[in-house]
Amino acid sequence: MKNYDLVIVGSGPAGLQAAIHAARRKLRTLVLGKLEASALFRAHMENYFGLSGKVSGEELLRTGLEQALRFGAEHRPEDVVALEMDPEGFRVKLEGGEEIRAGALILALGVSRRKKKIKGEDPLVGKGVSYCVDCDGFFFRGEPVAVVGEGSAAVHGALTLSKIASEVHLVAEDLRVSEALRRELKASPVIWHRARAEEVLGEESVTGLRLSTGEVLSVKGVFFEEGAKGALELATALGVALDPENMRYIQVDRRQATNVPGVFAAGDVTGPPFQVAKAVGEGCVAALAAADWLAEKKRAAGA
Amino acid sequence: MKNYDLVIVGSGPAGLQAAIHAARRKLRTLVLGKLEASALFRAHMENYFGLSGKVSGEELLRTGLEQALRFGAEHRPEDVVALEMDPEGFRVKLEGGEEIRAGALILALGVSRRKKKIKGEDPLVGKGVSYCVDCDGFFFRGEPVAVVGEGSAAVHGALTLSKIASEVHLVAEDLRVSEALRRELKASPVIWHRARAEEVLGEESVTGLRLSTGEVLSVKGVFFEEGAKGALELATALGVALDPENMRYIQVDRRQATNVPGVFAAGDVTGPPFQVAKAVGEGCVAALAAADWLAEKKRAAGA
Repeated sequence: MKNYDLVIVGSGPAGLQAAIHAARRKLRTLVLGKLEASALFRAHMENYFGLSGKVSGEELLRTGLEQALRFGAEHRPEDVVALEMDPEGFRVKLEGGEEIRAGALILALGVSRRKKKIKGEDPLVGKGVSYCVDCDGFFFRGEPVAVVGEGSAAVHGALTLSKIASEVHLVAEDLRVSEALRRELKASPVIWHRARAEEVLGEESVTGLRLSTGEVLSVKGVFFEEGAKGALELATALGVALDPENMRYIQVDRRQATNVPGVFAAGDVTGPPFQVAKAVGEGCVAALAAADWLAEKKRAAGA
Repeated sequence: MKNYDLVIVGSGPAGLQAAIHAARRKLRTLVLGKLEASALFRAHMENYFGLSGKVSGEELLRTGLEQALRFGAEHRPEDVVALEMDPEGFRVKLEGGEEIRAGALILALGVSRRKKKIKGEDPLVGKGVSYCVDCDGFFFRGEPVAVVGEGSAAVHGALTLSKIASEVHLVAEDLRVSEALRRELKASPVIWHRARAEEVLGEESVTGLRLSTGEVLSVKGVFFEEGAKGALELATALGVALDPENMRYIQVDRRQATNVPGVFAAGDVTGPPFQVAKAVGEGCVAALAAADWLAEKKRAAGA
């Protein structure tokens, strides 16, 4: 199993700035995630200190990744599907199946920004419409369900449901997942529809899902799982506490430390304002705090 | 008296990023301070997210100032010599004597980085060597003193001492202050020596100061006052609380708010790590928090 001092989950501005500082501090650093998954990727920036004129988010991210690599960090464009405690730190399971060991973690996963909701979705939330397979999947034992989404969260969700539900439909025009995960999907009973979801059907509860092809899937449950595996699901599985006010963000102190020793968080995942400058600042602080924490742990072990 | 929604004291990366965000939020925004006073000005940066290669600090600061001005902020390259409460917010007194009114304040003054200490300085701290005219000046009533420093803190310190001490020597190879302050100095009894301070003389207590010209000033006190008026002096005069752990930094919460309503702080002045990324992140958060605070105040007044 590969071993890193620090694994950074997420490669937006927070994750990349953290990787730059961690590598500068000579930590064996791995930053995980696809640049195009960052909310910044499709944006244009002009309000970030030091930019002359408007710069594309993609360009900024590519520059940031180059900086991190130049200083010695490694990068893998893979999502994380599970985080677990380990006697020597943490275990990080990648979407391709590989496991990695980390001395410390920085969670810089951003927040998922749902695209426009579809017709019928809002009125049926809690009546068959769900946003969390891990939370609600077991309610659909022996029933037909659909999962909407193109990333690893959707594919993993569909695979999980295939062991619970009677029939699982995955609705995605295209898939943004690793080859390994795609093969796993192909070998599973999940039925992939190359289409968009257009309307959730039902009055009292979900009865079906209409696709852009005109086809109607007869299902009792519809899971919207966009982006990578939900940051909050990964975090809470480790015991990381959320902001008690709204339970939507990871709670951190001024050093970006969570309640779990060795786990730090930075960027949008810690709450608003959702700005590149804020993400970058938190990434910097989290990396230096993680480096200090690792050094302290080493000293304590040596003493 | 000119009126601004927000006055930002300090024009390093924290202050300029704050100005960019505040102007974007349509606040009447004034950012104060000399770019060359920022610790970044003489540095080179390569570990700040988004930089391709090494960039000079001066270039980054000039770009950041251009961004702030383009979005509608105003800039004056003047130091602040006093901050006071006011029924409508705060009063900001500039080194040139002008007063300005602010609805809210962001303190982004950095930390003073003393250059190399001189011979005799360390052993005589508290025995005639001081770093704070406002704190220790009155101990030297009727005695001859020297002030070392080139900025507004030194000149203001010397002017203050000229009303207390029997004789005041200002030691500076050059002065980095406004024309108005320079005129005030010229009209005062302060004696300016165009020289460097080389050694503090004395055994039990200070007896003199040797200059680079070879001249020895017979003084009982030597004040080292570098940079702008000390951030902590300005802040504590407003009742702003310092970090209880070491009393060297301004204490802020996750929104960069101090204990004084309407006063925010960002950048090095809130403590380490002393990094551009951290300063920029805090400047962004402080500006948006100040904008929210002003909007809330306006709503409350209208209701």
